[in-house]
Amino acid sequence: MSRSIDLAVIPGDGIGQEVVAQGLKVLSAVLPQDVKLETKEFDFGARRYRATGETLTDADLDALKRHDAILLGAIGDPSVPSGVLERGFLLKLRFAFDHHVNLRPSKLLPGVATPLAGQPEIDFVVVREGTEGPYTGNGGTIRKGTPHEVATEVSVNTAFGVERVVRDAFARAQARPRKKLTLVHKNNVLTFAGHLWTNTFNKVAEEFPEVTTDYIHVDAATIYLVTDPARFDVIVTDNLFGDIITDLAAAVSGGIGVAASGNINPSGEFPSMFEPVHGSAPDIAGQGKADPSATVLSVALLLRHLGYETEAARIEDAVSADLAERGSATRTTEEIGDALAARVSG
Amino acid sequence: MSRSIDLAVIPGDGIGQEVVAQGLKVLSAVLPQDVKLETKEFDFGARRYRATGETLTDADLDALKRHDAILLGAIGDPSVPSGVLERGFLLKLRFAFDHHVNLRPSKLLPGVATPLAGQPEIDFVVVREGTEGPYTGNGGTIRKGTPHEVATEVSVNTAFGVERVVRDAFARAQARPRKKLTLVHKNNVLTFAGHLWTNTFNKVAEEFPEVTTDYIHVDAATIYLVTDPARFDVIVTDNLFGDIITDLAAAVSGGIGVAASGNINPSGEFPSMFEPVHGSAPDIAGQGKADPSATVLSVALLLRHLGYETEAARIEDAVSADLAERGSATRTTEEIGDALAARVSG
Ligand SMILES: CC(C)[C@H](C(=O)O)[C@@H](O)C(=O)O
Ligand SMILES: CC(C)[C@H](C(=O)O)[C@@H](O)C(=O)O
Repeated sequence: MSRSIDLAVIPGDGIGQEVVAQGLKVLSAVLPQDVKLETKEFDFGARRYRATGETLTDADLDALKRHDAILLGAIGDPSVPSGVLERGFLLKLRFAFDHHVNLRPSKLLPGVATPLAGQPEIDFVVVREGTEGPYTGNGGTIRKGTPHEVATEVSVNTAFGVERVVRDAFARAQARPRKKLTLVHKNNVLTFAGHLWTNTFNKVAEEFPEVTTDYIHVDAATIYLVTDPARFDVIVTDNLFGDIITDLAAAVSGGIGVAASGNINPSGEFPSMFEPVHGSAPDIAGQGKADPSATVLSVALLLRHLGYETEAARIEDAVSADLAERGSATRTTEEIGDALAARVSG
Repeated sequence: MSRSIDLAVIPGDGIGQEVVAQGLKVLSAVLPQDVKLETKEFDFGARRYRATGETLTDADLDALKRHDAILLGAIGDPSVPSGVLERGFLLKLRFAFDHHVNLRPSKLLPGVATPLAGQPEIDFVVVREGTEGPYTGNGGTIRKGTPHEVATEVSVNTAFGVERVVRDAFARAQARPRKKLTLVHKNNVLTFAGHLWTNTFNKVAEEFPEVTTDYIHVDAATIYLVTDPARFDVIVTDNLFGDIITDLAAAVSGGIGVAASGNINPSGEFPSMFEPVHGSAPDIAGQGKADPSATVLSVALLLRHLGYETEAARIEDAVSADLAERGSATRTTEEIGDALAARVSG
């Protein structure tokens, strides 16, 4: 049997270039001989925007669509006004490719520093909805710039959109040893959306009798994330709450240097995209200081998504071992990439 | 000169009764002889709702309106469906009395446990907008209960509403030694509201040249709250972001056992309301286990709001000293209240 992976690679801005290079190095090293890896690089990001004014065209989407998956480094640069690349590229891609399952695992690995006292056990996954909520761009402004300006943002939640992500989260919880799923929302205040989320959650729960469920308001969830993160196994939540709590989750479980994420289209109709949670960090770009671990862990998520479970686990074990033995020595981006590549091929 | 405080007291549900009793005890103890304290108790909350179906009537609002300030314990009980008392009482009161400055100080006091490693310096105040954003109840549901349900929540932001709370926050920053104000929003995604908030912030900043300003996305703010809380002095943010980050802020600075808050109408047109951030905690209600410190600190905010700065500081010093000396001995709600009352009158 001959297998192949056809990967679209978007290094992007700032440290994106450096970390993606290491991600690809580890990917090549981990893949069995019989898997043919093809990569095609795309120059999306701030440079292209400055040069052409384009962020992501229909032709770009067509080109990306032909690949099995997408690996992204980071997009964003101070030279581009805030929001342009976020809305024009990152969110546009999530919406165009219907990446409704935004997967963000948090695991505090041995040897990794956490801002929390007492090194708590942390091993949970956030399933963040990726195509609805306040991220739809619905809303507007009247009387802009006047003392009577009114600006609205509309959170849009559909039964279709909520149910599919909730069901995905239940399936993920079902597949984990603890089989526990927590819904995070603010259903006592956002009662319209809250009702839809809560009802859908309770309805889908009936299909998964083995999964233990609970509900926590988003504000209280931030408390538990710092006082008792061990209580979480799988969390399902809306787009904005997911954005907020996954940054906090990354911070408590070792920082955004090791936080990986997947923007997943479970049906496979469109390629899924994998990216580190960190941004382009222009202040340290080009200096070989960036930690490629988050990108390498995103490659593991990518492999798992494509069915390469053994290889995904091998990468995760390598990163885990590397972090445990890292000590205080400072290594360059490339040195860490080399060490990880050596481990996975060893 | 004869002075007086005419206080509306809403003990509410669960531990509300117990903690408010201690708050009033400390208030009586700290006030100078010449200040006449009058209190009137209101029976709002779950019991009244179950008995009458009422949460907060126009007549109630009229009655409350006549007082100088309101002290609230906690509202909420599992016997009442989620959202009923929150929307029908707490939020209704904030909106009716135009409590647009929701003041939530976070200070990690000596001797107080924090989930963060290394006991960082924490001393900041969040100024949360209280009458707009996604809390307005705007939005709705179509095709409820069907596979085609759509539920929306509308965040409403007005130049009037944003500017007054931003100006209040600047004035508070100006009055503090560090004179630093951070705007927390998500202006790269919520671009309509984000533009209004950011522009207003930058415009008002010109009136306060001594105040240093910065901007942080809400997701990144949760990271800083656990990795570098010392960077914050005053934060201004919208209603929902403020809800989320103040629970996290309370957690890192000693927990909701000591987190106080004020729902303030700066013009004085309506009485302001002061309450602990914690809820009614029905699981420990009536057992004398609740820590009244958050309520006592809310009394300090109340006194400061009414111009009793010396007395407010005396209460804060008493709570601080009590916490520092508390050790591991378990004391009842009443014992803590007695100790604080003794300190402030001593
Ligand atoms: C950059 C921004 C659009 C994005 C988001 O808000 O989703 C980021 O914060 C993330 O979490 O991936
Ligand atoms: C109970 C609820 C309505 C309230 C809010 O969301 O504002 C609470 O969480 C708070 O922070 O005071």
